[in-house]
Amino acid sequence: YKIVILPGDGVGPEVTAAARDVLNVIADFYGHRFEFSEHLIGGAAIDATGDPLPPETVEACLASHGVLLGAVGGPKWEGGKRRPEEGLLNIRKAMGLFANLRPLQVSPVMAHRSPLKKEIVEGVDLIVFRELTGGVYFGEKVRTDTMASDLCVYSVEEIERVTRAAFRIALQRRGKVTSVDKANVMETSRLWREVVTRIHAEEFPQVQLEHALVDSMAMHLIRKPREYDVILTENMFGDILSDEISVLGGSIGLLPSASLGSGGPGLFEPIHGSAPDIAGRDLANPVGTILSAAMLLRHGLGLDDEASSIEAAVAAVLAAGATTADLGGELGTRAAGEAIIDAIR
Amino acid sequence: YKIVILPGDGVGPEVTAAARDVLNVIADFYGHRFEFSEHLIGGAAIDATGDPLPPETVEACLASHGVLLGAVGGPKWEGGKRRPEEGLLNIRKAMGLFANLRPLQVSPVMAHRSPLKKEIVEGVDLIVFRELTGGVYFGEKVRTDTMASDLCVYSVEEIERVTRAAFRIALQRRGKVTSVDKANVMETSRLWREVVTRIHAEEFPQVQLEHALVDSMAMHLIRKPREYDVILTENMFGDILSDEISVLGGSIGLLPSASLGSGGPGLFEPIHGSAPDIAGRDLANPVGTILSAAMLLRHGLGLDDEASSIEAAVAAVLAAGATTADLGGELGTRAAGEAIIDAIR
Ligand SMILES: CC(C)[C@H](C(=O)O)[C@@H](O)C(=O)O
Ligand SMILES: CC(C)[C@H](C(=O)O)[C@@H](O)C(=O)O
Repeated sequence: YKIVILPGDGVGPEVTAAARDVLNVIADFYGHRFEFSEHLIGGAAIDATGDPLPPETVEACLASHGVLLGAVGGPKWEGGKRRPEEGLLNIRKAMGLFANLRPLQVSPVMAHRSPLKKEIVEGVDLIVFRELTGGVYFGEKVRTDTMASDLCVYSVEEIERVTRAAFRIALQRRGKVTSVDKANVMETSRLWREVVTRIHAEEFPQVQLEHALVDSMAMHLIRKPREYDVILTENMFGDILSDEISVLGGSIGLLPSASLGSGGPGLFEPIHGSAPDIAGRDLANPVGTILSAAMLLRHGLGLDDEASSIEAAVAAVLAAGATTADLGGELGTRAAGEAIIDAIR
Repeated sequence: YKIVILPGDGVGPEVTAAARDVLNVIADFYGHRFEFSEHLIGGAAIDATGDPLPPETVEACLASHGVLLGAVGGPKWEGGKRRPEEGLLNIRKAMGLFANLRPLQVSPVMAHRSPLKKEIVEGVDLIVFRELTGGVYFGEKVRTDTMASDLCVYSVEEIERVTRAAFRIALQRRGKVTSVDKANVMETSRLWREVVTRIHAEEFPQVQLEHALVDSMAMHLIRKPREYDVILTENMFGDILSDEISVLGGSIGLLPSASLGSGGPGLFEPIHGSAPDIAGRDLANPVGTILSAAMLLRHGLGLDDEASSIEAAVAAVLAAGATTADLGGELGTRAAGEAIIDAIR
C-alpha cells in the first residue's frame, strides 16, 4: 500500500511521525507493506517552492492509497502572497474529496474533562458529514476599493453525492440524519433542503431525517449533543459546527477526520491546527493523527481489524492516563505514541 | 414617547403583553407617557394582508421612538409564497438597523442551570455586536434547475459603522474587542479584518483588539467564555455565535437584544423564537422581552434609571426563584410578569 504523508506546518511533522511509527508496527504485526513517501504542503511548501501545493504533491497523492496530513498554517505566512490554507483547499479539490467525516465519541473517561456537564456529554456518539468542495469556499471572490464579495454556490449534484454518503453511514449507525441549513435566509440552503428531502424519500426512507437551522443547531449541540447521530451539512456550517463540538470531548487533540471522494484515495488528518506555539517541543498530542491513521486503514485500505486494534490501543492508553499535557498527563508526543505502540503489541 | 409593539407570531403576543404591562408601571412610577400602538409583522401579517411587512407597519416604526418585537415564524407558514422571516429582515433594512447587540451575563444564580460547568460560565459578561444589514442575508440570490447561489457582500462603509459602534461600547466596558471572521477563506472577511484593524489604529488605539476565526471562536466560546468582552462580527457569523452562547446562561428565554441604526428608532426583541409548541398556553418566559423593553428605555429613550429598575427587579425575581417552567419554576407568563411588576413597586 502506498501511503503519502504530508507533514505540513507547526506540530504537523511531530504528530505524523508518531502516526507513521504506529502504522509501521501494524504493518509488521499483520504482515502488510506500507510504502511511505513524504511531500510538501502549506507553509513548508511555500518556503521551499513558493507554492502551497506543488504539482508533485498532487501527483503523489492521486497515485496513493491514502494520504495522512498533519496540519497547515501559522503566523509566519500571514499577509504573504500565498496562504498555506490554499494548499489544503486545493488538495481537497484536486482529489475530489467531497465529504469530510468527523466522528465524536465521548467516553466516560473523557467526559469529566469536558467544559460541559458530565451528564450532558457522557455517551455522545455522533459523526459530522461536512460537504467539502462547494459553498462559499470555492465561489467567485471579488474585491474592489470599496467592497468585497464571496459567492456561495451549490449544484444539485454536489448536494446529492454527500447526502447519499451520509445516509449510507447512517444505516450502519443509529439510523438518524440531521441536515443543517439556513433555509429561512439562503437560496443554497433551500436547494439543500429540497435535495436532501428528495434523496431521503426516494432512496433512504428507512432513515429518520430531520432538518435544523444552523443557528439553533449551534445551541442544541451544547444542550443535548447525545440526541444526534449523523449531522449532514454544507461546507462553511460544517466547519463551524464541527469545531464547536470538537471541545465537547475535553481535548481537540484526540479527534481524527477523514475526507473522502468517490473511489479515489482519501485524506486523513487530525482536527487540530498547526499549533505553532508548541511546535517542535514534543508537546503535541499525537492521538488525533494516530486515530486518523486508523481511519485511513479502515476507510482507505479496507483494513478493519487493523484500524480497530489502533482504536482499542488508544482507548486503553487514555483509560490508563498515559497522556500528553493537554489531557493532564506527563508524556511528550513521542512517548504518547510509544505508549500506544506498546498497547498494540 | 411613541412605542410600537409588533407582537408577531407564536408566543410573541403573550410576551409582548407582559412587557407592555411592565412599561405601563414604569410610566406611572416615573411620570412618563408611553403611547403604544400595535402593528402586524411576520406570519400574522401574511394571514391578514398577504405581506409579512405591510407598509403601515414600516411607517409606524419609522415614526416611533422605539419598537418592541415579539417573535416571527412558525411551521404554519413553511413552504408558503411569502416567509414570515422576510418581515423581520425587511424591517431591519427599512429602519437601517445595522448593529444587533446581544448582551449575556451569567449570574451565580443562573450558572448552575447552564449546560456548561459552573466554574466555566459563572461571571460571563459579554456582548455580541452583530452586523445586521449586509452579508449573505441581502446579497443576490440565484436559482436554476441545477444549482443555487447566494452572494455575500460587504462594503467598507458597512463594516466601518458597526465597528465604530462596537469600539464605542467597548470603551464603556472592559475595553476589549474580539473581531470574528473567516479571513483564511473569505474575501469579505479579509476586507472585514482590514477595516477593523484600520479603525482601531486610527480611532480607538486604547481598546484592546484581537481577531479570531469563526470556527475556532465557536470552540473558545464554550471553553473560555469569560475571556470575552465585546465580540464583533458579520451578519451570518453573528447569527450562529450569538445563538450558540445564548444557552450558556441556562435559558434562552432570559435574553434580550437591541438592533440599532444611526439616530433613528431601534428595534428590541428577545433572542428566543416564536415557540409555536407552547404558544397561547401561558407558558413562555417573558423575561427576555421585558429585558428588551429595558434596553428600549436605555438605548432608545435614554431612560437609564427606568431601565435599571426593570433589570434590578428581574434579578431579584430570578434570585427568589419566581420563574417560569423553563427555569424550573411554576409561574405562567402572566404571573412571571406580575412578579416583576411587584418587584418594581
Ligand atoms: C484551514 C481552513 C481553510 C480549514 C477550513 O475552513 O476548511 C480548516 O478550518 C478546516 O476545518 O479544515
Ligand atoms: C429569523 C431569522 C431570519 C433571524 C436571522 O437569522 O437573522 C433570526 O435567526 C435572528 O437571529 O434574529
